[in-house]
Amino acid sequence: MSADTKLRVIPLGGLGEVGLNCMAIECNDEILIIDCGVLFPDLHWLGLDLVVPKFDYLIENKHKIKGLVVTHGHEDHIGAIPFLLREVEIPIIYASRFASRLIQEKCSEYGVLKRLLTHDVKAGDKVPAGSFEIEFIHVTHSTLQTFALAIHTPSGLIIHSGDFKFDETPYDGPPSDKARFLELGREKPILLLSDSTNSERDGHCPSESSLQDDLLSLIKTSPGAVVVALFASNVHRVHQLCDIAKECGRKVFLSGRSMERYVKIAIEEGLLPINTSLLYPLEELAQTPRHEILLLSTGSQGEARSSLFRLARNENPYLKLNEGDTVILSSRHIPGNERAINFVVNHLFKLGATVHYEGTKNVHVSGHAYRGEQLDLLKMVRPKFFIPVHGEYRHLVIHARTARASGAVSGEAFVVENGQVWEWDGDHVKMSDSIAAGRKWIFRGEAGDLDGSLIKERRAAARGGIVVVDCLTDRRQTQLLKDPQVSFRGFLGGMRLEPVMKESIIRDVTSAFLNWYPENPDGLTREQAIALAVRRVFRKSLDSKPLVIVSFLISERS
Amino acid sequence: MSADTKLRVIPLGGLGEVGLNCMAIECNDEILIIDCGVLFPDLHWLGLDLVVPKFDYLIENKHKIKGLVVTHGHEDHIGAIPFLLREVEIPIIYASRFASRLIQEKCSEYGVLKRLLTHDVKAGDKVPAGSFEIEFIHVTHSTLQTFALAIHTPSGLIIHSGDFKFDETPYDGPPSDKARFLELGREKPILLLSDSTNSERDGHCPSESSLQDDLLSLIKTSPGAVVVALFASNVHRVHQLCDIAKECGRKVFLSGRSMERYVKIAIEEGLLPINTSLLYPLEELAQTPRHEILLLSTGSQGEARSSLFRLARNENPYLKLNEGDTVILSSRHIPGNERAINFVVNHLFKLGATVHYEGTKNVHVSGHAYRGEQLDLLKMVRPKFFIPVHGEYRHLVIHARTARASGAVSGEAFVVENGQVWEWDGDHVKMSDSIAAGRKWIFRGEAGDLDGSLIKERRAAARGGIVVVDCLTDRRQTQLLKDPQVSFRGFLGGMRLEPVMKESIIRDVTSAFLNWYPENPDGLTREQAIALAVRRVFRKSLDSKPLVIVSFLISERS
Repeated sequence: MSADTKLRVIPLGGLGEVGLNCMAIECNDEILIIDCGVLFPDLHWLGLDLVVPKFDYLIENKHKIKGLVVTHGHEDHIGAIPFLLREVEIPIIYASRFASRLIQEKCSEYGVLKRLLTHDVKAGDKVPAGSFEIEFIHVTHSTLQTFALAIHTPSGLIIHSGDFKFDETPYDGPPSDKARFLELGREKPILLLSDSTNSERDGHCPSESSLQDDLLSLIKTSPGAVVVALFASNVHRVHQLCDIAKECGRKVFLSGRSMERYVKIAIEEGLLPINTSLLYPLEELAQTPRHEILLLSTGSQGEARSSLFRLARNENPYLKLNEGDTVILSSRHIPGNERAINFVVNHLFKLGATVHYEGTKNVHVSGHAYRGEQLDLLKMVRPKFFIPVHGEYRHLVIHARTARASGAVSGEAFVVENGQVWEWDGDHVKMSDSIAAGRKWIFRGEAGDLDGSLIKERRAAARGGIVVVDCLTDRRQTQLLKDPQVSFRGFLGGMRLEPVMKESIIRDVTSAFLNWYPENPDGLTREQAIALAVRRVFRKSLDSKPLVIVSFLISERS
Repeated sequence: MSADTKLRVIPLGGLGEVGLNCMAIECNDEILIIDCGVLFPDLHWLGLDLVVPKFDYLIENKHKIKGLVVTHGHEDHIGAIPFLLREVEIPIIYASRFASRLIQEKCSEYGVLKRLLTHDVKAGDKVPAGSFEIEFIHVTHSTLQTFALAIHTPSGLIIHSGDFKFDETPYDGPPSDKARFLELGREKPILLLSDSTNSERDGHCPSESSLQDDLLSLIKTSPGAVVVALFASNVHRVHQLCDIAKECGRKVFLSGRSMERYVKIAIEEGLLPINTSLLYPLEELAQTPRHEILLLSTGSQGEARSSLFRLARNENPYLKLNEGDTVILSSRHIPGNERAINFVVNHLFKLGATVHYEGTKNVHVSGHAYRGEQLDLLKMVRPKFFIPVHGEYRHLVIHARTARASGAVSGEAFVVENGQVWEWDGDHVKMSDSIAAGRKWIFRGEAGDLDGSLIKERRAAARGGIVVVDCLTDRRQTQLLKDPQVSFRGFLGGMRLEPVMKESIIRDVTSAFLNWYPENPDGLTREQAIALAVRRVFRKSLDSKPLVIVSFLISERS
């Protein structure tokens, strides 16, 4: 390997967090991008819609980009593609037919469909991107058409697991292509990148088919309507539930926009082999005998205004749940969503429904490999180097420990974080941390920085309330023509301190205004100096930091 | 029983939520209050400190209040006492010595110590409050001196479990006084109120002593410092850990204000029987060999700026964690805190520490009865009626089901919610829902309503940003002397729509100002009419709802 065929692995997202999966593989001044996902923020309360990775590195090196490969169609792997396309040109995006359809919809929504060039691939396909060759390997996961990747680079072979589990009895389709992993293992891969989500869980992840008996019995024995909330992207589970409906003589209703969307695409592409006469429009719910209803719903995370949320609040126009009805949350509780899920579950109990969820019944299995499967993959691939991907920091550390203990890695296992660059020149491995990585927030389709004014100012207003100071000045802004006018927002109505504080604020603002001069040692603008004076009053009186908004109005008179 | 000895049970908090435990027992125009707790809000982001129950019913009926009994010293049972004392006089508060000390501190902090009259009680004591007689029964729980209550009323005997578990091998002190429950059961209690926290968990809660082997082995085998994060109020566990420290030859350090406070009170009251020479001041951490360190820390819920949080961020001045050190989170993950806990755990991993927590090791047991113990209590007490308390709605429902299935309740099991009144006249049970109940928010010691301006305005600003509109008017406020001045806060810096929107806003504000007249059909103030116009622009352009702040400045000229 010559000096200019250094291989670089540059994670832009997903290493040290769940979501935002995006990685650049660089060799010979060519870049291949793997996945480009979003994260659903815990900052919904700030009115933010999405988080995407910072693409600075890709923008600076856009001339090197040869293509993007998509492992599967989950939002945390494809959701940020439209935002990347706004910034750079991607010569080709390789994705499964199913993921492709989802990407197209997304790009159309954000107005970048014209910049999108996709090529559909199937398991077993080998495609080029610059001097890279990428092979797609079938693996089982909680959505359709999921791939692991074998990436042949000028520096050697890289295996990327994608999101996977080794489900030996998937509900539909074949098990993961272990034979291919074994063959590739004989080609002496230099690097394995593998899914770390469940690295804290011992053993093997239960099979999707292991749910069948319990789901069937819960649905069969319910005297009333049955609602199952699940991720719409889990088309295998939708398939399983439709088959159960058939067996129980129930009609299937789909509720929630994404549920309708995913099922529609899956059916159009021939990926959901059910008799579509099983499916009924929501409007017919009211006329359907309750014991013939199976409603598949979004909202398993308790999302406000989701289909399940509205059912729990009795706001579904066609179906009012009550005693005798059953609700199954066929999903895990994603950390951070517990309170929202509890809210929904408690409301369902109030309606009298019988509710089953994670922990109380066997109604969900993960789509990600447990430690045992992670170990199996390591032993099949036997790479020189190993980098755990897709997980919080602790998941990566534990996965790296598993790899070291396995004896399957001849070189080293590295914990790499977003923005760190792992470099291999054929002899030596080097780690640097010099690449800009991080997050951008999406608000109504526009991207902003995490530390940008949106978040900082909204957060300050939320935590500390708002003080507006209006100063009426002469044209030269040297005099205050009257006392500054102060108003408060976001304080308790009867707050006893208010009148006192107003006085102090007026006094301190006036003096800050008058004492300010352009060359002040702190380099403050007059506005900043006044805001500082107001914040001082609040710190002293209330130990709180409001957002201070200062306006200067120039009087007509001057 | 005569008509005027109707017995009424009036829950003001804790029935349908975890926290805010507060209940009135009313008979013969006399009220006995049981507990008066807070809830730690999930609205920290709004700068709110605490939630307390609405005391309207107690305020309206303050002349009836004969006393308050405290089952134990947890914040969700005593934290709201100072706020209640601000509103009403409580002739006497009965509490254990330990709870008493905590209540005194709290009342002193909020400046109501003078209004506080407590009387210390021990298990077995019987005390009067009006025509009630209350007996205190020892039960095991995750803090010191916890009682169940036997309340003799003119209408009959009520048993209240308090927070309890039937720990047969508590780490210190005797097991719960089951013999007394059995005796009381023979007195034909009319009502049992019992702890529902763990009604979803089958079997019996593991004993506090069951942790000993695992905690000892984890601490003994750690080559470096050991940090255990736990609730400071869990003095039994502190005791256990101090004994382990002694056995391992480690010194004990206490970190976090509440850890120091609880341990100090427990030692002063002779409730923590350890050799105080085990305890060392934090300043000596740096000079202590790492394998001799056992640091007991607050912050097990990932609280920002807590002791554990600062350790995780390497901000503790005396101890920097690294490889070889061990951190144990000896506590459960309270729903809603998962992300904060994950943040801390991931940072501890980054420092290289070995971290053990719920799910990975046996490092915590609950302080609340599982279904099996709930059933045991029901069968001992064999009440006429049963009301589950202390739990989310689903916990209450499941607990009521357990009671019905037990055959131990001769009358009925009721699910009662906050604000509902359960009434028994000797012959009939009646349920009404006519009492005002709910929550008040505490901000810097002042109470406000949930729907009050503080929350509404801060939330609006957080979700939708802030628009300030300044109008310079003549003295009669009939003219705008210049274009309204508009400024935005909490929007993305580079938001493309801004200039366009500013123009529309100026135009619409001007017209709203000019078209407004005092007798407008919607009854809007001029300020409201202008704010409405601004919100319309935002709804149309951005589908978002900002907080709009309108100021009128009267020019000097006019």
